[in-house]
Amino acid sequence: MISEKMRNMVKNSSAIRAMFEEGKRLAKIYGEQNVYDFSLGNPNLPAPKEVSDALKEEIDGCDALTLHGYMSNAGYDDVREAIAQNLNKKYSTRYDKNCIVMSVGAAGGLNVFLKAVLDPGDEVVVIAPFFGEYANYVANYDGRLVVVKPNPPTFQPDIKAFGEALTAKTKAVIINTPNNPTGVVYDEKTLAALADEMRAAEKKFGTSIYLLSDEPYRELVFGVKQPYPALFYENTVSGYSFSKSLSLAGERIGYLAVNPECADFDDLTSALGVATRVLGFVNAPSLIQRAVARCLDASVDVKFYEKNGAALKAIMDECGFEYVEPQGAFYLFVKAPGGDDAAFCAKAKEHRLLLVPASGFGCKGWVRIAYCVSPETIRSSRESFIRLAEDCRK
Amino acid sequence: MISEKMRNMVKNSSAIRAMFEEGKRLAKIYGEQNVYDFSLGNPNLPAPKEVSDALKEEIDGCDALTLHGYMSNAGYDDVREAIAQNLNKKYSTRYDKNCIVMSVGAAGGLNVFLKAVLDPGDEVVVIAPFFGEYANYVANYDGRLVVVKPNPPTFQPDIKAFGEALTAKTKAVIINTPNNPTGVVYDEKTLAALADEMRAAEKKFGTSIYLLSDEPYRELVFGVKQPYPALFYENTVSGYSFSKSLSLAGERIGYLAVNPECADFDDLTSALGVATRVLGFVNAPSLIQRAVARCLDASVDVKFYEKNGAALKAIMDECGFEYVEPQGAFYLFVKAPGGDDAAFCAKAKEHRLLLVPASGFGCKGWVRIAYCVSPETIRSSRESFIRLAEDCRK
Repeated sequence: MISEKMRNMVKNSSAIRAMFEEGKRLAKIYGEQNVYDFSLGNPNLPAPKEVSDALKEEIDGCDALTLHGYMSNAGYDDVREAIAQNLNKKYSTRYDKNCIVMSVGAAGGLNVFLKAVLDPGDEVVVIAPFFGEYANYVANYDGRLVVVKPNPPTFQPDIKAFGEALTAKTKAVIINTPNNPTGVVYDEKTLAALADEMRAAEKKFGTSIYLLSDEPYRELVFGVKQPYPALFYENTVSGYSFSKSLSLAGERIGYLAVNPECADFDDLTSALGVATRVLGFVNAPSLIQRAVARCLDASVDVKFYEKNGAALKAIMDECGFEYVEPQGAFYLFVKAPGGDDAAFCAKAKEHRLLLVPASGFGCKGWVRIAYCVSPETIRSSRESFIRLAEDCRK
Repeated sequence: MISEKMRNMVKNSSAIRAMFEEGKRLAKIYGEQNVYDFSLGNPNLPAPKEVSDALKEEIDGCDALTLHGYMSNAGYDDVREAIAQNLNKKYSTRYDKNCIVMSVGAAGGLNVFLKAVLDPGDEVVVIAPFFGEYANYVANYDGRLVVVKPNPPTFQPDIKAFGEALTAKTKAVIINTPNNPTGVVYDEKTLAALADEMRAAEKKFGTSIYLLSDEPYRELVFGVKQPYPALFYENTVSGYSFSKSLSLAGERIGYLAVNPECADFDDLTSALGVATRVLGFVNAPSLIQRAVARCLDASVDVKFYEKNGAALKAIMDECGFEYVEPQGAFYLFVKAPGGDDAAFCAKAKEHRLLLVPASGFGCKGWVRIAYCVSPETIRSSRESFIRLAEDCRK
């Protein structure tokens, strides 16, 4: 009785989520401490104290009708204004509240954007490897995903291949820096080069192309700077989530920031509000909207992830596994010995290591190791990785 | 640059939401107390104290990783089990946690269900007048909305017309009792008759038909009993929201309850989880999930709405306006004198009365008055209604 499309989706259900459920199953058998679950980007750092303080202040201080009631589909005016001003302070942008649409996490925001702009057959360009859910999000609105092939070993975008992927049907480009799954950060030169290609395509085809910049890892950088993508290209909509910076992945809270210089700004922001409503989000959850607005300068300790990454890299070095040097986010992108990522992950599971094959990210032959786990998990996983490496040499 | 579909949606944007925004505009000009906003189903009762207590207990007592982190797409296991048991206690059902999928409000749940089951061209039957958003939700998945015409003056479903609307392509039927916008409650006889028609159609066409029972107003009944629809028909998925019973409309928290006797139960519940993920909901917001699970027997004071309804009916009687006797929810369904609901609402706006024309609910010639407002708003609106009635007699 379920739909045909859905039948296929259920069958090929997200490799990430499948691993997450598998992890819960194995933990029941072997004990949680004996299963090394590197599958899901579920932060292991508790939310900063500012968040619980802010939640309680709102519960005690805000009248219940305002705190728990409907507001405009785009979110509370004061919350949107606070976010706009905070972005302006950090990135010298010129947002105001009309530029901000609160969303049910970045995932909700991306869907709202795509619903607002895509007609059937419109093309959306992504650069592999990319977060696999983009393919589902684009398919939700009958868009056509155009994949720019991976560019190992740096996994920085191949600018020429990117330019060639842009056509008269390109409605949007999705970038994600710091990148899931590679941990790579796009620098100013890269962002400028991508913008040049998009502007050239707009001119060539007489169209407008949106840049949808998916930025849940914006603050999670290690010794490098993440330039703000909207500063490089006018038609930018930035998607943000508080899932990582404040460890609130389950709360589903984020926003879209529409560059005030965006083409058709009024139409677009109206459409984002309508899309929020008709997709059934209605609005981002209310209490947590108000709470994050009080914590815009708070953050989890990024050093924690940097140290985790270093510890994991040391194990990979010991095992002789090849990987991409991570500059941000909390993923290590590792080459599957032998080249079969699914087989490598299956073998890893025998050693109670849960990794995600990157075929689902459009990049066969690699795997993603999410190191947003406890340092203890990384330490204890060492022996399993060493045995896995031995297995691979057999 | 926005999509064609969206361009039309923005143009014909929800009459309800348009009124809500209009109300905010008028309030700025005339002062909030001088605008009588009956447009939106935004509860005027504060959430019961149990909710803030539960929120604080979770913030203080639950570890932050569990409280704010990802869980299964369907929600926390313990929350789902608590809801299942509470439903079993109230309705003698036989749910367990596998039957419950937590959702971003009822609107999110309805979208998740429709995503899971609809192939393009599948028919979804609704009985007019119906919550106008159903049309958008069905269109999101390229379903075809089939409308059973309104049955005035009682607005109980016309069983014969309903049976005739069922075809070999009917995938689902949506009912909503207590009903938005009429306030009508379907009794046992009606629910049994609807079930008989659906079973007959299943037999005739060799298909399965889902009943999607949208129940945000389940507890809001006045002196009548709302029978539990899933008890009358095996293939029932019940959509619930805590928006009204706990006055949490902005929090976006609800669930789908899948009847364990539903056809393809395992496929369907898997698909609901996947749909929750790929639509970008990912999961219902975490903290409020845990909080409502502690408040399953709490409720706002239903008498408040009953009294509001009585006060409003007295004004309508004084004005000579015809209406449907409300049995539940918090809407009064009023016949537009002259028969033009849009013109009547425009005239009402001149008297600073914000009503919603029922054309958007598939029922021309009637208007919806949402009385989830303060008693003071109803009292002060009396003069405006009287002047509106005088205007209509001119």
